[in-house]
Formats: sequence, structure tokens, C-alpha cells
Amino acid sequence: MDKRQFKKRGVDYPIIDGVRTLPGKYYHDQDIYQEEVDKIFYKFWIYACRAEELAAVGDYKLIQVADESLILVRDKSNDIRALFNVCSHRGTQLCAEPAGNFKSKSIQCPYHAWTYGLDGKLIAAPQMQEGNGFLKSECGLPQASVQIWEGFVFINLDKNPVAFSVQMEALMGKFKDWKMDELRIAHHIRYELNCNWKLILQNYQECYHCPGVHPLLTELTPVQSAQHDASSGAVIGGYMDLTKERGSMTMDGSAAAPPVCNVSGADLQRIYYYSVFPSMLLTPHPDFVLFHHIIPMGPGKIINDCYWLFRPEVISDPKGQAGIKSAVDFWDLTNKQDWMVCEQMQIGTMSRRFTRGYYSGREDILHRLDVEVLKALGHDQPG
Amino acid sequence: MDKRQFKKRGVDYPIIDGVRTLPGKYYHDQDIYQEEVDKIFYKFWIYACRAEELAAVGDYKLIQVADESLILVRDKSNDIRALFNVCSHRGTQLCAEPAGNFKSKSIQCPYHAWTYGLDGKLIAAPQMQEGNGFLKSECGLPQASVQIWEGFVFINLDKNPVAFSVQMEALMGKFKDWKMDELRIAHHIRYELNCNWKLILQNYQECYHCPGVHPLLTELTPVQSAQHDASSGAVIGGYMDLTKERGSMTMDGSAAAPPVCNVSGADLQRIYYYSVFPSMLLTPHPDFVLFHHIIPMGPGKIINDCYWLFRPEVISDPKGQAGIKSAVDFWDLTNKQDWMVCEQMQIGTMSRRFTRGYYSGREDILHRLDVEVLKALGHDQPG
Amino acid sequence: MDKRQFKKRGVDYPIIDGVRTLPGKYYHDQDIYQEEVDKIFYKFWIYACRAEELAAVGDYKLIQVADESLILVRDKSNDIRALFNVCSHRGTQLCAEPAGNFKSKSIQCPYHAWTYGLDGKLIAAPQMQEGNGFLKSECGLPQASVQIWEGFVFINLDKNPVAFSVQMEALMGKFKDWKMDELRIAHHIRYELNCNWKLILQNYQECYHCPGVHPLLTELTPVQSAQHDASSGAVIGGYMDLTKERGSMTMDGSAAAPPVCNVSGADLQRIYYYSVFPSMLLTPHPDFVLFHHIIPMGPGKIINDCYWLFRPEVISDPKGQAGIKSAVDFWDLTNKQDWMVCEQMQIGTMSRRFTRGYYSGREDILHRLDVEVLKALGHDQPG
Repeated sequence: MDKRQFKKRGVDYPIIDGVRTLPGKYYHDQDIYQEEVDKIFYKFWIYACRAEELAAVGDYKLIQVADESLILVRDKSNDIRALFNVCSHRGTQLCAEPAGNFKSKSIQCPYHAWTYGLDGKLIAAPQMQEGNGFLKSECGLPQASVQIWEGFVFINLDKNPVAFSVQMEALMGKFKDWKMDELRIAHHIRYELNCNWKLILQNYQECYHCPGVHPLLTELTPVQSAQHDASSGAVIGGYMDLTKERGSMTMDGSAAAPPVCNVSGADLQRIYYYSVFPSMLLTPHPDFVLFHHIIPMGPGKIINDCYWLFRPEVISDPKGQAGIKSAVDFWDLTNKQDWMVCEQMQIGTMSRRFTRGYYSGREDILHRLDVEVLKALGHDQPG
Repeated sequence: MDKRQFKKRGVDYPIIDGVRTLPGKYYHDQDIYQEEVDKIFYKFWIYACRAEELAAVGDYKLIQVADESLILVRDKSNDIRALFNVCSHRGTQLCAEPAGNFKSKSIQCPYHAWTYGLDGKLIAAPQMQEGNGFLKSECGLPQASVQIWEGFVFINLDKNPVAFSVQMEALMGKFKDWKMDELRIAHHIRYELNCNWKLILQNYQECYHCPGVHPLLTELTPVQSAQHDASSGAVIGGYMDLTKERGSMTMDGSAAAPPVCNVSGADLQRIYYYSVFPSMLLTPHPDFVLFHHIIPMGPGKIINDCYWLFRPEVISDPKGQAGIKSAVDFWDLTNKQDWMVCEQMQIGTMSRRFTRGYYSGREDILHRLDVEVLKALGHDQPG
Repeated sequence: MDKRQFKKRGVDYPIIDGVRTLPGKYYHDQDIYQEEVDKIFYKFWIYACRAEELAAVGDYKLIQVADESLILVRDKSNDIRALFNVCSHRGTQLCAEPAGNFKSKSIQCPYHAWTYGLDGKLIAAPQMQEGNGFLKSECGLPQASVQIWEGFVFINLDKNPVAFSVQMEALMGKFKDWKMDELRIAHHIRYELNCNWKLILQNYQECYHCPGVHPLLTELTPVQSAQHDASSGAVIGGYMDLTKERGSMTMDGSAAAPPVCNVSGADLQRIYYYSVFPSMLLTPHPDFVLFHHIIPMGPGKIINDCYWLFRPEVISDPKGQAGIKSAVDFWDLTNKQDWMVCEQMQIGTMSRRFTRGYYSGREDILHRLDVEVLKALGHDQPG
């Protein structure tokens, strides 16, 4: 790995080998977007939901991946399944409610009552005899692969998915002190943004913009403290140091809650920023965990679901609410500051007079993200 | 004709030779939709309006066929004309109001006052001399062909249309006991739906979905009673039996009105379901006639105009209103049940993991509709 | 130049050599529209704003040209600049507010604080060292060329623009008696229309439609008085005579104000109609100046900004308001009459049964406009 990425970044960096941004079309072109859907969102492991959202057998949540709807559901064996939300008979969407529980422990098509088990097997096709090509055993629901890491459910739509541990190498064993599988969603905000999904990742991986865009964040975590500490597979990570002793990212910089589980030592003064390419941003704090789920809806449109995870005992404690609110308010403010510049970058890059700009030394990681995208698409790097 | 289609359908049918549905793209692809417009909606006889809507000379109604607007108008000879709503001068839409009466018995372009007779002939082009290619006699409005059957006005946009009696063979002489030209529109509901036009025809031609989707309908007309009785040209028809003596399709299953005209014998206990491909669904009851007019607005969008026809003396009789209302309520309920599953099928068939499903024996007619579409488009049947 | 265009047009004209309109696709096709953007709106001098809108150093106004946003700004040397609104770093739109003043006399990108002078030069790129390809002197903002004529600011987005005086030949020296640079905007109305930009120019250059569409205008300026008096480069002009002595185009036909500056003689009885191809319509009256700015937003969508210019002493005089209002009301009424027929022509020309119509003698200039478009696009004239 390139040592350069691990150097302390408190000084003016030379630009790296004249490295330049992607051409503007990568944020606007419908064909490139379709390629990204095919070669990235249908190939990579992508975040789907939290396991806690499917607590009981029959609990489900619908997940949208481009044109595809999937039913994330807990089956009778207590496994989580990712079933394509499409009846094998005539293609009817099986379930339209965004979340709920299949009380019957089966999934019935609203059109002709074909019925599937929670494991996706076709149980009943009324008034149809097997034969002439039709076999119930071959008409189960198609399924995506599922992997759970620390309470986060990931899915892979590819029929032959890459190994989870390869794509997520930099996450394996990381953050175990947080026992994230025990954390629970304390708050959720859905943002709808008019920008390309890649702009959100780029925005997340550099703090060159922080002094102008985030005055409060810059006070709590100085730009000069930004460091990288992981970079392999599809995961890129770094951290920043808190100025305030035992502080956190809240409106007044105080901790929102006691440290999470076994978090200790240097981690008590750090905020981690991990991009789980292509669609999740993970931000462990000493006292809570923030994460974003980016859902592309077209070249210039995304949904961004932002979640705050806390210890369950903090959530259930009336005295814990003020801290949670302060963490939510801080990040909601910071998010909106980011969304504004991302949306303005989306508009500006439409100009045919935008020639690819030069990255600063503080944006070296963005070049790595660009290369990751180009590699996944099989594109040569633009000259 | 295939005998199989006329067998009583009260038992589990074997699926027919492993016949499968159309691929999902036939409901979503913009190019296929454009082909359908060219090769189906511009070639087939299609329903336009009821003759009663153009009662007096000068009465008109605008009809939309894909990008084309037509003026259905009654001319001075009492004939109904279907004039393209486009001035021959510079292409201005002549008329924007959806319906009305041309008081002047002529049609004047709002832009430069070119004036046409109700028969489409150019009467006046102010301040223009004939010559150099310009001849008034050659600048009349283009017209679609018109045929009236039992009070239903059909048009054909093709310059060399197929004979009406060939396309409508199965309708010729059928339903004469209803004297439908004497019936009048008692009620009209416009539905705007997010689905492909073919899904509505498919939905109409099978009752495999009835037990789950239409509990009330199933009570009034058992699924097992469904039979086909006509299938030639572009018309496919069948019927179901009423359980209730002298009943009908209303909220309580009672007749909405006395039997229509000369309806007698077995027809007093039957509801007919006739698809007049590609855009009309005709449902004669013993006591009234229901019909749908399907107007495609894109691959995934239609307008569905639903009409209830009754005898004029029922409509004008205050005591007749309760029966009409009960028929309207029943079908409005039933329509909405159908729209829901059609819209869910539209969404589901977008999935690239939907592989063409197997039709049940009760859906044999849907395969005939699919073949009709493929034949009209000149496509090979998908393997 | 063709003499025919200068003949008095008070009689029925023969159509000219069977000349016909453009095919309908020129108003609807997305590819033709994109060609027009490339070969017309990015090549021709186009109206941007009035110099008075940028009175002080730092004053700016955003201008949209297809996908391109430009900052029109008065710099420290008192020159007007047309800067592309795109940061050279990562392509962020620099400025989102439609108009204002850059108090700092510089333009700072909201994302990473790159800072440009009002002349477009890059002043500061925080924490970036020059080298490896990055030179501040090469990262200034791209600029469009600027020319001011009589207070009207024109820009040209081409890197090698045609000479302003060539394109505007017919305007050079024309209308100097109005001292238009001294006039000020008394009123502005923004119209959003569903039609192609060319339909507005066509509508402006013929009065064949006036008797039917504009009864009041026709009373004030008879159709028979329409004459052409200029036609070269991209400017086509003509005039009409006022029936009322010392009148003007107002609700009662009286002058809205005293004659402008040195306007005298025949000009006191004339309304001029000048098309400044492709996007400005200029209408000097004896007592005020009306002009339209046409902004294409797609093949079937435009913004039309309409401005009324008066002498500043009329605007500041309370007694002048009634005259201004009468001029505004007259043209707002007339504009809306025109928009209706333009929008109906937009719809009608979608019909595939619209075959190119014959122009009347009174529409000869429209053929010249069509030829101008075809020449700019490099298309052969449709046969």
C-alpha cells in the first residue's frame, strides 16, 4: 500500500502526479449510470438493512436496488433472506408495503394467490398441475446472497458473488470493541438529494472542504488531524482527533452518551470515517455510531438514509434523550451543509467547459475512489 | 379454431404445452411501445366514442391516439367524421376544448383563420392565391376511417384500413338483442393507471385471479362457470353464469334494471366478457352494458374510461337511479381491485430476474392475446 | 437582397415558389434541439442582460444557456465579464443566487474556497502548491466574449466568435435616435411557455395572424402597413404604421410617454419589429422600447423574459406610471394571445399526418428564418 496515504496531513501537500478529477459525464451520463448499476450495484456487496429491523420470524423490509425490489425477511430458521419481490408466475410485485410482518409465515401473490415460504420456495400454485416444463421446485423466488457483519445486513445480487471477506477485508475484526450488533437505531432521517451517488462518497473522504463548509465540525475535529488508517478492497478508512477530552460530535462537543462497550484508549478521542464502497458510510464515535445508506435513483438523484446507533440502555433511558438529540442535530446540520455543495457540484459539472480539475494533496483518496469506479466499469482512466 | 378453448373450465387444467408469458420488456420498453403505436394503434380499428356523444350536426369530441389528436364530429350530412386536429397551413392544433359544438358549422384555425368544413374540406385560406403548388382542394384535413357498430364509433388511422367486418368478425350479429345503439351513457369514470395497456386486456380475459382479488364478484359469478364462446379476428369473448336467478353484477347481486330490450333465455343468466383488441372491453349484462376504453399514454401509463350504458327510460326514471348506482358501485369496486394488481404486475415485471412464467390452463386466452400482439408487431415468439 | 421583401404588402400575395414550412420534427426532435444548442446558441451572439442590471462593480446576474450557467459581472475595471459559473477545481457551481453583488470583489467557491477575481483569474487555491501540471494562471474561469450595443449586453460562448458587427450588421447605427443605452427597465414579465423557440420568432415576423388573434393591435396598426426594412446577417426587421397621430401600442392607443430622445419624423408613427436571431426580439416604439429574451429549455419549452424600457425621468415621475401601465397591459394581453397559438402549433406539429404546409406571401420572412436555421445546422433544405 502507498505510504503516502498514511502521512500526517497537517501541511500543504503537493498535488500528486498531476492527478485530475473524473470528467463531468461520470455524474450525468445515463449510459454510464446504467453501467454502474450493472457492474457495481449488481456485483458488489451492498448494505441492505440492520438485522434489528427483522427481529422476529416473518418480519420484512423492502429494499430498492435500481429497478429491483427485494424483500429482506427473517425466515423460520431465523436466517435472513433477500428475496426478489417478483412472483414467478406472471411477474407481479409480491409485496408493496415498505415493511411489516408476514403473519402467515408465507408470502402470497395478491394476483393469483401463488404462495411462497419465507425461504422463497413455491408452496402453492392454485389449480396448476406440474408438467410440461412447470415444476414448483423450479419456480421459487430468486434470491440475493446475504451476509451479516456486526448487525449490518449486506446483500449481493450477483449470481456468483465475490467473497464477502475479500471485499470487506479492511472491516474484518475492525471496530469489534463497539459490539455494533448490540447497538440499536435511535434515530433515522431520510434525505432526497439531486446529485450523483459518487459525489457523496467523495465528499465524505476529504476534509479539505471542512473549514469553509463545516465551521462547527472543524472546531471539534481539526482538519490537520485527518489521517488514513485503512485502504483495501472496497473499504477506505481514516479518522480525525477530537479536540475536547472525552468529547464527541454534538452541538456543544460533549459526549452524547458514555463510551460504547469496550471502546478505550486512543479510540476515545477519535471519529472514524469509513467508506464501504459503493453505498455505505460508517462513522464510529466513542459514544455512538453514525452511518449513511446511499441509494442511487438515477445519475443525478439519490436517497440518503442516515442512522444514529446507540446502546439500547441509552435509548430506553429518558435521561439519554438529550445526548441523542444533540448528536442528531449536529449531524443533521453537517449533512445539510454537505448536501448543498454536493448538489452545486452536480449542477456545475454539467458544463461542457468544465475540464477535469487537479486534486489537492488532501484529496488523494478521491483519486483512489475514482480508480475503483473505473476499474469496476472496465474503463481506461481518462488521459 | 382450437377446441381446447371451448372446454368447460371447472377443473384443474394441465398447463398448455409449457406456454409462457411475454418477457417483461414488452411492458416497459419504449421502442416496443412505439412499435405497438405504429403497428397496432395506427393499424387496427379502435374505439373512439359513442355516436350519442355527437347527437347534433357540429357536435364534436376530441380523441387522443398516442401523439395524435382527432376531432370526431358530426357533419352536415349527418355522418361522423374523424378529422386530424391539425391545420394544413402551419400545423396548429385546430381545437383545444375536449368537446363541444362548432356553432358556425365550420372549423377555424385560431392562428391564421384557415377555415374547414365539418367534412374536412378547406373552405377559406385568407389572402392566399392558389398556384405554385398550393391548391385548396389538396389542403383539406387528413381523416381517419369511421365505422359505427351498435352505437359504438370505431376509427382506423391507417390510410388503407383492413375491412371492419374482418377485424370484428366475432361481433357481427352478436348482441343484437341488446339494441345497444339505443342505449345511453348513464355513468362514466375516468381512471389513470400506471401500467401497460396489455395488462388490462390480460386481466380481463382470465378469472384465475377472481377468488383472491374479487370476493364479491366470485360470489355472484363462480369462477368455474367461465367459458369462451368466441375467438376470431381481433375479438375474443366468453361469459360467466350468474348464481342468482335474474340477478346482475351489483352490490347486492340484484338486477339493476329490467332486462335490456330482447335479451332472453340463457342470456338472462350470463355476463359476457368480450375483448375488442386492442383497446375496448365490452361487458353486456342482462340489464345493462359496461365497457372500457383503454388509451395508452406510454409503456407504463394508460387512461381507462369506463362507461355504464342503460336504456334511456331507466336513466330518466328517478326510480331507476338506485339500480344504476348499485351497478356503478359494484364495478368501480371491482375495477379498483383489478387496477391494484395490474399496477403491481407492471412494477414487478421490471425486474431483470423475472424470467417468463408459466401460464395456467385458466390463462390459455392470454397466450392468444400475446400471440396477437407478436403477430401484429412481426416479432417471432420468444423461445 | 431580394427586392420582393421590400414591396408594400397591402394586397393578396401569390405564395412564393411553393415554399413550405419546416417539417414538424424541427420543433420536437431532441437530437435536432441538441444540434441547435451546439451550432446556434453556442455560436451566435446572444442577448444576456441589460448593462444597467450590472451598475456597480461586483454586481452580477446569472444567465442560463442550455446546460450552461454564466455569471455576468462588472469587474474592477468597470468591464462586464461573462464567466462560466463552474469552479476549475472540481466543477462546483460557484454561485446559485440569480443576482446580487459580490461584496468581497471576488468569487469564492462554496466547496473548497477556491477564490477568483471578478475578472475570472484564480487568486487563491487553499493549501495547494503549484507544480505537476497545476498552475493557478491556467485555472482561471472560462469566459464567454462580451459586446455591448446600446445598453444591451450580448455574449458569445464560442471560443472563436464571429465578429459582432457582422452578425449584427443591420443593427449598426440603427435606432441611435432612441439612445437606448440611457433607457431603463420599467417593467419585466417572465413567461414560461410550452413551445419551441423558433415558433416565437416566426410568430413575431408575420402579421398574417393579427386580424384573428390581435383585434386591438390590428386597430392600432393595420396589417396592410407591415413592411420590411432590414434583412442582413442574423437580423431581420420591419415596421408597421400607427393609425393614430402620435399614438402608440397601449390599451387606448395613446402615447405612453413623450417621444424618446431624438425620435422624429416618420419614426413617430412607426412600430419597429426586429428579430435579433436567435433569441431577442426588439420593438422600438416612438415613446418606449419593448424587447423579448427567449431562453430555450428543451425542444418544447422556453422561458420568455419580456422587458419594457422607458426614459428614467418617466419611470421616476409618478405621473408617468399610468402610461407605463397602459403599455405593459397592452403587450401582456398581446403576448398571451400569441402564446396561445404558438402552444397550439407546438402540439399540432407533433402529428405524423402534418405534411409541410405552404407559406402565404405574408409569411415570406418565415422562410428566411427557416433557411437561417437550416444553414446554421448545415442541413439541406427539406425537399
